[in-house]
Amino acid sequence: MASTLTFDNPVFAQFAFYGTVCVFKTMVMSLITIKQRLSRKVVANMEDRLVKGQTTIFNDVVVERTRRCHQNDVENVIPFILVGVLYVLTGPDPWWAAFHFRLFTGCRICHTIAYLFAIPQPARASMFGIGWLTVVSMGVSVLMRGKF
Amino acid sequence: MASTLTFDNPVFAQFAFYGTVCVFKTMVMSLITIKQRLSRKVVANMEDRLVKGQTTIFNDVVVERTRRCHQNDVENVIPFILVGVLYVLTGPDPWWAAFHFRLFTGCRICHTIAYLFAIPQPARASMFGIGWLTVVSMGVSVLMRGKF
Amino acid sequence: MASTLTFDNPVFAQFAFYGTVCVFKTMVMSLITIKQRLSRKVVANMEDRLVKGQTTIFNDVVVERTRRCHQNDVENVIPFILVGVLYVLTGPDPWWAAFHFRLFTGCRICHTIAYLFAIPQPARASMFGIGWLTVVSMGVSVLMRGKF
Repeated sequence: MASTLTFDNPVFAQFAFYGTVCVFKTMVMSLITIKQRLSRKVVANMEDRLVKGQTTIFNDVVVERTRRCHQNDVENVIPFILVGVLYVLTGPDPWWAAFHFRLFTGCRICHTIAYLFAIPQPARASMFGIGWLTVVSMGVSVLMRGKF
Repeated sequence: MASTLTFDNPVFAQFAFYGTVCVFKTMVMSLITIKQRLSRKVVANMEDRLVKGQTTIFNDVVVERTRRCHQNDVENVIPFILVGVLYVLTGPDPWWAAFHFRLFTGCRICHTIAYLFAIPQPARASMFGIGWLTVVSMGVSVLMRGKF
Repeated sequence: MASTLTFDNPVFAQFAFYGTVCVFKTMVMSLITIKQRLSRKVVANMEDRLVKGQTTIFNDVVVERTRRCHQNDVENVIPFILVGVLYVLTGPDPWWAAFHFRLFTGCRICHTIAYLFAIPQPARASMFGIGWLTVVSMGVSVLMRGKF
């Protein structure tokens, strides 16, 4: 039971919660990008120029920072979910699994804050690194149970 | 049974169908990009210059539009599948679940058409927004069943 | 049994192995990018300039090549995993399934080598194409079992 994809399995129920939090966090980046594009009047497509004064540029320093942060989420949160669901199926120790899910989620939220507010390094780099290693740790468990 | 990942579960069978349609739609963007790179003779790598007249530039207005559309798919379709599979496991009402899957798939197809043909706003923005809210709606159901 | 998400199902155990290998391969691109940014002294954010001589530019030919390779992985490996897990649930022939998983994984590893070392075409294009078709082949199996 501890290795099935059902909400009766507490490990899965926790994974579902933290996984969805991470996906939501990633999706919020779209809203921040839209808000910044409106307030800074920079759009990516001609047909998006509805208000006077909007320009079509691709090097706005604030918008591009948000987009890099979004891209970093895509490159890290999605592997977390993909590997995480396989990890749940290995039937991990519930405490150890929860530790992974919470550590990763916390790191990614801090990573976003560090990125958007340009907090001096190694704030962002360490949050990226710990999150990255969390996924590797789960993935190694999957590889050991997997079949070549 | 209504909350298991088997093709006997009609909710899952529908999710599998619409999820795969959305992934295929996203993957087709690669083909459109390749076709446009060939016809417009713009490549991204030196070693891709096989035919005379091809240039290595990164600001071709048509190719970059397709790439932005592809990226928007990556940022929206993947969350839909990740959250969607968790949503299926919550055992949702079949009619309500089908409504979510079809609405999202329809929105993303219309979003691509609106993007590639530069249809005046708010065509693309509304398709993006409704699709985005569909994923949020499914995710909220997951969060309520998930464990903190 | 041959169509369940458990490590007792050899098809799933293989999918879990090769899927994780592909995700790890994608995640390694982040490390290569970091290494290249450090050795070539090009960073993407002001706050990343810790050592003298680092510049904030976005057109370094080596770093951007690695980033394109990473993006290509995102656009291909993630669809492989998403469609692959649905494909496992269709209960495919184990030999045929393993053929898909191994072919895709091999193609993506070769694709990365071809990209990073700028091996003349059609090395990279063919590896991309075969991998792409592998996902389509799995997806068609899913669509045939799915429900409209």
